[in-house]
Amino acid sequence: MYLHVKETAFHCKPEKPDPVYAKQLQELIGGQWGEISVMLGYMFQAWNSRGPIKYRDMTFDIGTEEIGHVEMLATMVARLLERSPVEDQENAAKDSLVGAVMGGARVEDVIMAGMSPQHFIVSGGGAMPVDSQGNRWTADYIVASGNLLADFRFNVTAESQGRLQAARLYNMTDDPGVKEMLSYLIARDTMHQNQWLAAIAELEADGLDETPCPANFPRELENQEFSYKFLNHSAGTESAEGRWASGPTPDGKGNFEYVAEPPALGPVPDLGMTDPRLYGTQKVPTPPDAS
Amino acid sequence: MYLHVKETAFHCKPEKPDPVYAKQLQELIGGQWGEISVMLGYMFQAWNSRGPIKYRDMTFDIGTEEIGHVEMLATMVARLLERSPVEDQENAAKDSLVGAVMGGARVEDVIMAGMSPQHFIVSGGGAMPVDSQGNRWTADYIVASGNLLADFRFNVTAESQGRLQAARLYNMTDDPGVKEMLSYLIARDTMHQNQWLAAIAELEADGLDETPCPANFPRELENQEFSYKFLNHSAGTESAEGRWASGPTPDGKGNFEYVAEPPALGPVPDLGMTDPRLYGTQKVPTPPDAS
Amino acid sequence: MYLHVKETAFHCKPEKPDPVYAKQLQELIGGQWGEISVMLGYMFQAWNSRGPIKYRDMTFDIGTEEIGHVEMLATMVARLLERSPVEDQENAAKDSLVGAVMGGARVEDVIMAGMSPQHFIVSGGGAMPVDSQGNRWTADYIVASGNLLADFRFNVTAESQGRLQAARLYNMTDDPGVKEMLSYLIARDTMHQNQWLAAIAELEADGLDETPCPANFPRELENQEFSYKFLNHSAGTESAEGRWASGPTPDGKGNFEYVAEPPALGPVPDLGMTDPRLYGTQKVPTPPDAS
Amino acid sequence: MYLHVKETAFHCKPEKPDPVYAKQLQELIGGQWGEISVMLGYMFQAWNSRGPIKYRDMTFDIGTEEIGHVEMLATMVARLLERSPVEDQENAAKDSLVGAVMGGARVEDVIMAGMSPQHFIVSGGGAMPVDSQGNRWTADYIVASGNLLADFRFNVTAESQGRLQAARLYNMTDDPGVKEMLSYLIARDTMHQNQWLAAIAELEADGLDETPCPANFPRELENQEFSYKFLNHSAGTESAEGRWASGPTPDGKGNFEYVAEPPALGPVPDLGMTDPRLYGTQKVPTPPDAS
Amino acid sequence: MYLHVKETAFHCKPEKPDPVYAKQLQELIGGQWGEISVMLGYMFQAWNSRGPIKYRDMTFDIGTEEIGHVEMLATMVARLLERSPVEDQENAAKDSLVGAVMGGARVEDVIMAGMSPQHFIVSGGGAMPVDSQGNRWTADYIVASGNLLADFRFNVTAESQGRLQAARLYNMTDDPGVKEMLSYLIARDTMHQNQWLAAIAELEADGLDETPCPANFPRELENQEFSYKFLNHSAGTESAEGRWASGPTPDGKGNFEYVAEPPALGPVPDLGMTDPRLYGTQKVPTPPDAS
Amino acid sequence: MYLHVKETAFHCKPEKPDPVYAKQLQELIGGQWGEISVMLGYMFQAWNSRGPIKYRDMTFDIGTEEIGHVEMLATMVARLLERSPVEDQENAAKDSLVGAVMGGARVEDVIMAGMSPQHFIVSGGGAMPVDSQGNRWTADYIVASGNLLADFRFNVTAESQGRLQAARLYNMTDDPGVKEMLSYLIARDTMHQNQWLAAIAELEADGLDETPCPANFPRELENQEFSYKFLNHSAGTESAEGRWASGPTPDGKGNFEYVAEPPALGPVPDLGMTDPRLYGTQKVPTPPDAS
Repeated sequence: MYLHVKETAFHCKPEKPDPVYAKQLQELIGGQWGEISVMLGYMFQAWNSRGPIKYRDMTFDIGTEEIGHVEMLATMVARLLERSPVEDQENAAKDSLVGAVMGGARVEDVIMAGMSPQHFIVSGGGAMPVDSQGNRWTADYIVASGNLLADFRFNVTAESQGRLQAARLYNMTDDPGVKEMLSYLIARDTMHQNQWLAAIAELEADGLDETPCPANFPRELENQEFSYKFLNHSAGTESAEGRWASGPTPDGKGNFEYVAEPPALGPVPDLGMTDPRLYGTQKVPTPPDAS
Repeated sequence: MYLHVKETAFHCKPEKPDPVYAKQLQELIGGQWGEISVMLGYMFQAWNSRGPIKYRDMTFDIGTEEIGHVEMLATMVARLLERSPVEDQENAAKDSLVGAVMGGARVEDVIMAGMSPQHFIVSGGGAMPVDSQGNRWTADYIVASGNLLADFRFNVTAESQGRLQAARLYNMTDDPGVKEMLSYLIARDTMHQNQWLAAIAELEADGLDETPCPANFPRELENQEFSYKFLNHSAGTESAEGRWASGPTPDGKGNFEYVAEPPALGPVPDLGMTDPRLYGTQKVPTPPDAS
Repeated sequence: MYLHVKETAFHCKPEKPDPVYAKQLQELIGGQWGEISVMLGYMFQAWNSRGPIKYRDMTFDIGTEEIGHVEMLATMVARLLERSPVEDQENAAKDSLVGAVMGGARVEDVIMAGMSPQHFIVSGGGAMPVDSQGNRWTADYIVASGNLLADFRFNVTAESQGRLQAARLYNMTDDPGVKEMLSYLIARDTMHQNQWLAAIAELEADGLDETPCPANFPRELENQEFSYKFLNHSAGTESAEGRWASGPTPDGKGNFEYVAEPPALGPVPDLGMTDPRLYGTQKVPTPPDAS
Repeated sequence: MYLHVKETAFHCKPEKPDPVYAKQLQELIGGQWGEISVMLGYMFQAWNSRGPIKYRDMTFDIGTEEIGHVEMLATMVARLLERSPVEDQENAAKDSLVGAVMGGARVEDVIMAGMSPQHFIVSGGGAMPVDSQGNRWTADYIVASGNLLADFRFNVTAESQGRLQAARLYNMTDDPGVKEMLSYLIARDTMHQNQWLAAIAELEADGLDETPCPANFPRELENQEFSYKFLNHSAGTESAEGRWASGPTPDGKGNFEYVAEPPALGPVPDLGMTDPRLYGTQKVPTPPDAS
Repeated sequence: MYLHVKETAFHCKPEKPDPVYAKQLQELIGGQWGEISVMLGYMFQAWNSRGPIKYRDMTFDIGTEEIGHVEMLATMVARLLERSPVEDQENAAKDSLVGAVMGGARVEDVIMAGMSPQHFIVSGGGAMPVDSQGNRWTADYIVASGNLLADFRFNVTAESQGRLQAARLYNMTDDPGVKEMLSYLIARDTMHQNQWLAAIAELEADGLDETPCPANFPRELENQEFSYKFLNHSAGTESAEGRWASGPTPDGKGNFEYVAEPPALGPVPDLGMTDPRLYGTQKVPTPPDAS
Repeated sequence: MYLHVKETAFHCKPEKPDPVYAKQLQELIGGQWGEISVMLGYMFQAWNSRGPIKYRDMTFDIGTEEIGHVEMLATMVARLLERSPVEDQENAAKDSLVGAVMGGARVEDVIMAGMSPQHFIVSGGGAMPVDSQGNRWTADYIVASGNLLADFRFNVTAESQGRLQAARLYNMTDDPGVKEMLSYLIARDTMHQNQWLAAIAELEADGLDETPCPANFPRELENQEFSYKFLNHSAGTESAEGRWASGPTPDGKGNFEYVAEPPALGPVPDLGMTDPRLYGTQKVPTPPDAS
């Protein structure tokens, strides 16, 4: 069960409206690596979690925090789409593109500015569950596999991609209010990268899993001849220069071997027939009465 | 530029047809973590790669290998959907549900078997770019951010989820031909988990990036007061028991601090007005002639 | 069965081309609340309708009318993307951005104008089944549940959202031809809101359904202790001020009760185990040979 | 900001596992009218709300309650996918299809049962953000327009469709634990239908909006000749029998008029030319050197 | 503008209900090559058509006919989902799986039958705009490019894939009512393949376009050195055996040339730098203060 | 199995960066008719091919070639997003919008230019698997039916739409490097249109299929009364003027017949009942205790 606190987790107020930036900031709400993705992704991982309770609760805590991040970003976008404050009225045409389009300016001038037309037509000046190109958020973006190591690795990625995008957006605005909020979100991404890396270490220390994940699939059932071979698939061997090509493997269970010219081990496939009533093309013509 | 070798990378021939399993195996082709995802994902990372050449070539090698994995799986699915071989003709009704539905059995008997109806109606006995529920593959599943650390972390995840799913599917069939192929693919996932972990270590050793990723966003611009605090968002403190709650952080740059009752630091939001011509609901009624 | 009348239902001719507005107008064709949604949605409701014939025929009539609305909008978009008429040739660079991009102007000047690049590259100057951001129309937008009250309530929404968007778009153009068409469509939305509200009243008068919908689910099977309680989920009780918090309920069958601090009635979940061969993380490590 | 309460809002424990029903119950989680849709939809409406505070807070309360409903359903699905409890071990083959597939039974027997293969392969025995056919949840399902009347009408629909689906699912199981939870959810849908209907009445009483929505679009700008006409689009006039065809309109501002044979008021469209460099088909051949 | 005729274009009544087949038949309604695709696809081509009027009208005629095909199929699906007729009541458990699940049978027995759970939960016994796997129809399936030759070629495909799928479905049922309807639809697909092939011939005869399409792109601007070369991309030259490898080309403007070992003509790409404030990985480490 | 050649198939280097054009060029990568569609589409056709080996190998060759086309386009897009070369530094504000946004210009100036915000925020200056509006590529775009004639017809379309779009894009840039690459791709589309047309002729010459496709569905099972009739669905008979309305049909097996006023041959549908426990609206009210 969840409760709502009416105050926001942190400040989320721009100095002034900026509908163009509002469109870009949507990436952090409804994009592949936006806050809806981590909020819902962590929640499904927590709801399905069957491991020790500390992992489950930790995941709930961060997932619940992320709902508040969506809230902050949605509030910021809604404010970036507002009319300019009173003191800026005279500069409205410059400051507020929203004001401009509605206040007599040629519509072309505004559209050229790269705003989202849906911020007018669809949401009427509110945040949307979409990315910066208008793609609706989809649950294709999340994962909850039941295996905590596999999922925590995903979470490290999510916090890395999220911090990367927030950092890029930080450089694309001069608004101190927006920068203040992003500065906070970037710090939380720093925390969360560390948090998931620590959780991975804890999982391994608790003996719950390790590389290769999942660790309790019996190794003898895997074709171990190919478990540590680098198969070069191109002319030239520049790829032999990294530590993935020789020396001990990170899982501590083998040594990398570089195969410069890997052979194709299977024969040329030659598919058989399907039922003639599927009307597929076979090697020889099939007469109608064969079906 | 790419070349095709007519032989397959490894064996991909089932002992006998099994259209029900064919549906399930689709997950490894067109699912979120299927081979199309890694093939196209790695390729976009490589095409966009601006880092040292060894990373780019390594990524091309594995991406090109993955095209061959899609090929093996597609070939396997096509064969699982074939008619039974001659020696099994007498047992066709039992062995081959495809044969059954076309050979006089009641259609209900077959549909009940959980096959994909699209393997008949749409592909006519061939593999499809879909997952085990019939969802078409989408580029929502992949990422190429231009930042290699962020992306390699994704790749570690992809190989973990992929190996997990292949291991589950290994247990869901008794066909020795299918098991042989999966045993190979599971081994390659072991290799690739190690490969991407080694690549991350190499990136860090080369000074190209580190935690918090991206490392070259100036730390002083992030609100460092919140960079290492665990914010508990629930009653009870079970989440304080892991190494994410105290002690040095994995990035070696701070110490975790557990905040049992984090305050809401922003005020209650009170949004302003939008242009009346958007016909949004404002705090007081807007007369028609105001627009 | 359907017939096509070559004339359009109403005028749909702009005074002059405006490719930027063409992009925005796409929202009314292929957006969530665009005309394809009502056309196909009403049609599926009618095709599946098992209630009295008057409802079925009424739904067919409005659904068929909506095909003509898509036609009008598509025709309008196609014309907004045309070359300027002869008399405007000298002003082509100003009047027609389409002409501009093809007539020697810098491509940047045009793209900046916020046109849809797909109106050039994909449709070659024609309408598309997409919204104003280029998202393709999807049947996710429609509903046909077999229960007419549930569906007619959806239809009231659809006509409200549609009229809202058309009204917003009315303010975003100065073209008298476009305004004339929108003025007609807005009037039809007025009619259709009234039409569906009347149909809901008729359904209730005919005794076919009522609130709570569906009315013929036996009330004694629902946990009536919770049927009229407002469960406050936040600190503070501003939400107690509306008529949803006290007094008789709209269905005439109860009284609202405000619960300021609703308790969590279920225990803390503690999930059990899954089969070890799914390789999920359990409370204690699972050895490989357990699978 | 949000907080998590570790207890669930209500009971969500089945008597025993039932992976087949788990697949069906997914509709209430990740379907078009599932709980993710109301949870996220209401939240975006609240985050963007600029009207009187009572509406905003009421919407937050119900939205926050719905997160808890997703939690209950996800927990239920996870438990329906568990191994059977100890006392049922001897009947495992019958009771638990999960156990069956892993315990030696023929895979066909299990797949035939209509389970979701992704509950094994992808989530490893956990709930997923998908509907009963495996379609991933998408933000296409929600709306937040900035106009509260338009959106509250959507919410009435959502609670009607949701209650309808829960009622259908109630009849598709005999498990008393599942029925107990659904009985609670159905009661909450009863409350929420009433709540949104009351909120609509309050909006109208507060003078904030009314039919035709949005009410503050100037009526003189709409083509009022067509605002109350029923346009019959078929041979036969069965559709004249309802109250949508004659008498006063629900908005109290007009009278329905039935037009049995509505004329087409626009001419036959005759589109003009596009730029020859788009290579569209024109009325006469365009020579290559014209481009 | 469109009108609805209450009679259906052809018979669409099954002998008895069959909910399992209802799911499969959905492919012809909402699948990639289903009737919604041709109905909406042809309509957009017609609405956007700027060529001679005969093409536009022909396209409208076939598009309008296809709406009626969706109607027939939707009606058929709705009937396949009905309760059994009175005379079959005693055999309801056998004849009607719908009746079975509601009449006391174990739910497992029914789900095993391969029905769509959404035919119960979502549509309540009606057709849906989905394919046989439950994927919602999407406008991704259609095309209207403004170039009639390019689009008519698509239409030939659509009628081929559609006839292929109808033929497969014809073999998957024994119901004479279903077969009667499919027999009609298959005949119409025969007509429509011929119709589009005739339309292509007419386009070419009218001098409006030809191969290579679009014909009025100036040939001298294309790199004609590569216009008729077959580039073999594999070891072995089995692909040299077809008429695509030698002899005159179908456009009558060249001769095929087989290149057994095509060289890579571009150099190894070596990408340059991006702005450091995008935090991409460059060839050498970028210090934080560089951004 | 596949191998990567480090050189690109052809040149793919622009004269200078142009991020606005980069967005448009995305259509050829991740659009409906972009190179990912042909690459993956042809590959699935080849992997599933059961016909004579020459068709399979030819399809592999062209599919493999197309991977290289994606590579060229992705490389081009990445370069269009780079910083300007050193010699152009002084003109950076004019030449490079990327440089502009990062080099002190107001962000609005850049966004107005119609760039993709995701080229900054998501890919960090790299190509993406999306179209020119930012829609992610989806496998909805491809087909592999098992019937080669049906699929080769699709391929002719794909090469026509692809050539059309490349020709349009050719006219939208002045960059000689971009034009050189497009000139090559347009030539390859010429080849591939011819190649698939030749393959269709070969299929027919080999007796493997013909019109109506699939040819081996027994003609006597189709309702041949309707196989060659043109059914006019509108007032007026302009559609009678083409060769689709009279004369011999392209399949050489019949003669077109024009039916100016086709009758509706089915009765008005009157659907029966569904189970009352689905709570659908029936012709008369259903009391709660009936369920």
